[in-house]
Amino acid sequence: MAMKEFVDTATAQFFARLETTGNLLPHTIEEELTALLPPGARVEIIPPRKKKLVILVTKEYHCLGDLLVRHFFGELHADILAVVGNYSTLAPFTEKFGIPFHEVSHQGISREEFEARLLQAIKAYDPDYLVLAKFMRILSPSFVEQYQERIINIHHSFLPAFVGANPYKQAFERGVKLIGATAHIVNNDLDEGPIITQQIIPVKHDDGVTDMVEAGHEIEKAVLADALKLVLEDRIFVSGNKTIVFT
Amino acid sequence: MAMKEFVDTATAQFFARLETTGNLLPHTIEEELTALLPPGARVEIIPPRKKKLVILVTKEYHCLGDLLVRHFFGELHADILAVVGNYSTLAPFTEKFGIPFHEVSHQGISREEFEARLLQAIKAYDPDYLVLAKFMRILSPSFVEQYQERIINIHHSFLPAFVGANPYKQAFERGVKLIGATAHIVNNDLDEGPIITQQIIPVKHDDGVTDMVEAGHEIEKAVLADALKLVLEDRIFVSGNKTIVFT
Amino acid sequence: MAMKEFVDTATAQFFARLETTGNLLPHTIEEELTALLPPGARVEIIPPRKKKLVILVTKEYHCLGDLLVRHFFGELHADILAVVGNYSTLAPFTEKFGIPFHEVSHQGISREEFEARLLQAIKAYDPDYLVLAKFMRILSPSFVEQYQERIINIHHSFLPAFVGANPYKQAFERGVKLIGATAHIVNNDLDEGPIITQQIIPVKHDDGVTDMVEAGHEIEKAVLADALKLVLEDRIFVSGNKTIVFT
Amino acid sequence: MAMKEFVDTATAQFFARLETTGNLLPHTIEEELTALLPPGARVEIIPPRKKKLVILVTKEYHCLGDLLVRHFFGELHADILAVVGNYSTLAPFTEKFGIPFHEVSHQGISREEFEARLLQAIKAYDPDYLVLAKFMRILSPSFVEQYQERIINIHHSFLPAFVGANPYKQAFERGVKLIGATAHIVNNDLDEGPIITQQIIPVKHDDGVTDMVEAGHEIEKAVLADALKLVLEDRIFVSGNKTIVFT
Repeated sequence: MAMKEFVDTATAQFFARLETTGNLLPHTIEEELTALLPPGARVEIIPPRKKKLVILVTKEYHCLGDLLVRHFFGELHADILAVVGNYSTLAPFTEKFGIPFHEVSHQGISREEFEARLLQAIKAYDPDYLVLAKFMRILSPSFVEQYQERIINIHHSFLPAFVGANPYKQAFERGVKLIGATAHIVNNDLDEGPIITQQIIPVKHDDGVTDMVEAGHEIEKAVLADALKLVLEDRIFVSGNKTIVFT
Repeated sequence: MAMKEFVDTATAQFFARLETTGNLLPHTIEEELTALLPPGARVEIIPPRKKKLVILVTKEYHCLGDLLVRHFFGELHADILAVVGNYSTLAPFTEKFGIPFHEVSHQGISREEFEARLLQAIKAYDPDYLVLAKFMRILSPSFVEQYQERIINIHHSFLPAFVGANPYKQAFERGVKLIGATAHIVNNDLDEGPIITQQIIPVKHDDGVTDMVEAGHEIEKAVLADALKLVLEDRIFVSGNKTIVFT
Repeated sequence: MAMKEFVDTATAQFFARLETTGNLLPHTIEEELTALLPPGARVEIIPPRKKKLVILVTKEYHCLGDLLVRHFFGELHADILAVVGNYSTLAPFTEKFGIPFHEVSHQGISREEFEARLLQAIKAYDPDYLVLAKFMRILSPSFVEQYQERIINIHHSFLPAFVGANPYKQAFERGVKLIGATAHIVNNDLDEGPIITQQIIPVKHDDGVTDMVEAGHEIEKAVLADALKLVLEDRIFVSGNKTIVFT
Repeated sequence: MAMKEFVDTATAQFFARLETTGNLLPHTIEEELTALLPPGARVEIIPPRKKKLVILVTKEYHCLGDLLVRHFFGELHADILAVVGNYSTLAPFTEKFGIPFHEVSHQGISREEFEARLLQAIKAYDPDYLVLAKFMRILSPSFVEQYQERIINIHHSFLPAFVGANPYKQAFERGVKLIGATAHIVNNDLDEGPIITQQIIPVKHDDGVTDMVEAGHEIEKAVLADALKLVLEDRIFVSGNKTIVFT
């Protein structure tokens, strides 16, 4: 049994995560806790089971490669049901691992139509979480609403620095000495949403843009793997635009 | 003998730092190198000597305390000639170490007048470098010009994130998981100027603004000490808005 | 209110730390908790108060300097009552801050006699904790027993590597790329005892022994400050030869 | 053009690495440099070409997975010609990537016989480097001699702590707060040899041995990838039992 608590004085909310073993039925625990707690308290019992994931990608392989290899060797602690890409670039790689790949192109159609097709491809799998593993399209609020607090993104910078496109070029031009990456839960603002975890990697004056991109890939895949582990172990609670991370 | 080189292809400039021992006279080396090198090459011979510093402060003690203790025990590898503050808060502390403290208040006078008085206080010491150890006034271009590439500032954030006032409050509200600090050379843009070094320190969901400020102090003083060591060993070259760090 | 728990399955022990505010009297809480908990459970109520520290030193200044500066500015969250040294080297520095310094030399007397004199100097202050801030004498089991789990040491290496004397020379000769430091609670084995926290700092092939010592000083003082903060906030529980760190 | 130098005063040797572009023939440069330098100076001209690698494994997948994925996407900057394992565990995974896998079992034969078979399997590929990606057999001096300074190993600890078997269990039992990994060049002593790079990852009191193993895997694969990049870019020079790392 392990319990972690947090009082968010800013929002006057109390959060607790209790991990336990035993043979009580989930609904019994839920009833007993609900009876104990003040009215309005939200109780969620999460039995141990592998979460189901669908991964969205564009063309970059580094985060997907990391996730598929962990999955293949049974160390992701989740099931990757499918990979969906707006290009077919990563199809051959994905299929090596026996995972279905769906290409849903955004080209020549409206965003509404693109997202409708995306949703159709995804919904067939009924995933617990969508993982944006370098998926380079911006999702609309109505799409995000369908997976409220269930879309995890890896952002290629130390948010809130270098919001937007080409962060490594921006970083190179500014002459920074550290490159960062941020994993966050997607909400309706681009590059916003509650931050799960962040890491950095040092860079030097003789690192060009390409070196910074490579360093960024290292840190992006490490940050996404870390964040996903926290999510899959149900350690992340959302309070407003922040996360509570019960490690 | 140790040599480091860098070709900045963006500006088509070549930089080299050569550290050597021996009994050649500096001006002989300079003449010989100048004869060897293409016309226009800048040669600077820096004999080993302790640099002279004047430190500017406002009210926060953490960076100043770190520098004065190192200085007292002979491990700063520089001479702190004076501390100048726009408040007298840190005078008693400074004077414990036998270092003169000058209060130059900014209150009730124009920026021009304030900077004129600052310069007067500083110039008496003919310092090699000014160290802004949490000096909370913005210096005008004409002041900065007097100490071109010789003013070192510690900025309370991982630039370019959280430019401006109250970065820890901004960081708290954004729910970041890392706090950074940046040491840079001051030029004419607030919070800009070539970055010397940057570091980060992790923060958690249960760290309030005060905790973040405390964490920030730790990292600020570490970053400033690092940057100053690099500067005092003549390892920092400036190329445009970037530094070359010959470690 | 914040609560953290840990079940140590290796020793079948349950640990919990509860931080709360309110106007209940400590002994009331203690009685109520004791009644609730199984017999044999250890309950300790720690009202908020500044802990009293005595610092032991030899000749190195870096950790002491850090602690005295924090103390002077009211940010140590503890009272430093005295500094005791087996040399007088650090007396002038200590006295600048208005803290009494006691020299207790180990020279020309037996360890028993030395420790008896140390104890006499220390006991006058009735400290909560002894901080060994680079105190280079080994304390006997009978001394340690007097301050069971109340002596904090900073060890100049990433334990368990480089146990014993001259760790930086050992590190240099081995050609390591990282230097570490370890803060731990002192028990009866030299360089053993439950580890509170550890950190590292990178070193390079062109760092000599002196550079490694300097890098080590940076990390030693950072690690000791971190560990002490955890201890002073009553976040460290000891279970066998390990610590539980309720951050 | 970029040049880095180092004078190893301990061994009175001078090392320099010069990276250049142009259309001079390698042997012309070599002749001219040899004429310029004192007799006995070793000059090596390395034209840009992809190095050839053979990877040795046992059963653990994490380092191999990382290398094969980078290779597949053309970002390893080397050619993996074959994987050789003393078990067949990783054959299916390797073959997904179109790389030949050779099982060379150590069971039921002498070490001499095992190493003779290993050499036979490896020599067919004439590799520049052997990468021990969690290869759990100790290689004899006579084997190592065949690939002098050309065998890269990832060691599962922050050497020189926890030498030998089961380092994570040792680390757990000691209650450390950091786990490390070390990439080094193999010489004739187990767990010795010049260190290329080291990194650490924090662990907590509630991490069991399994968690420490998982954390160790993360850091092992990061450290091996880093070290290999340095090796493949010809940035590592060996001086006695240390490396010079010209980054």
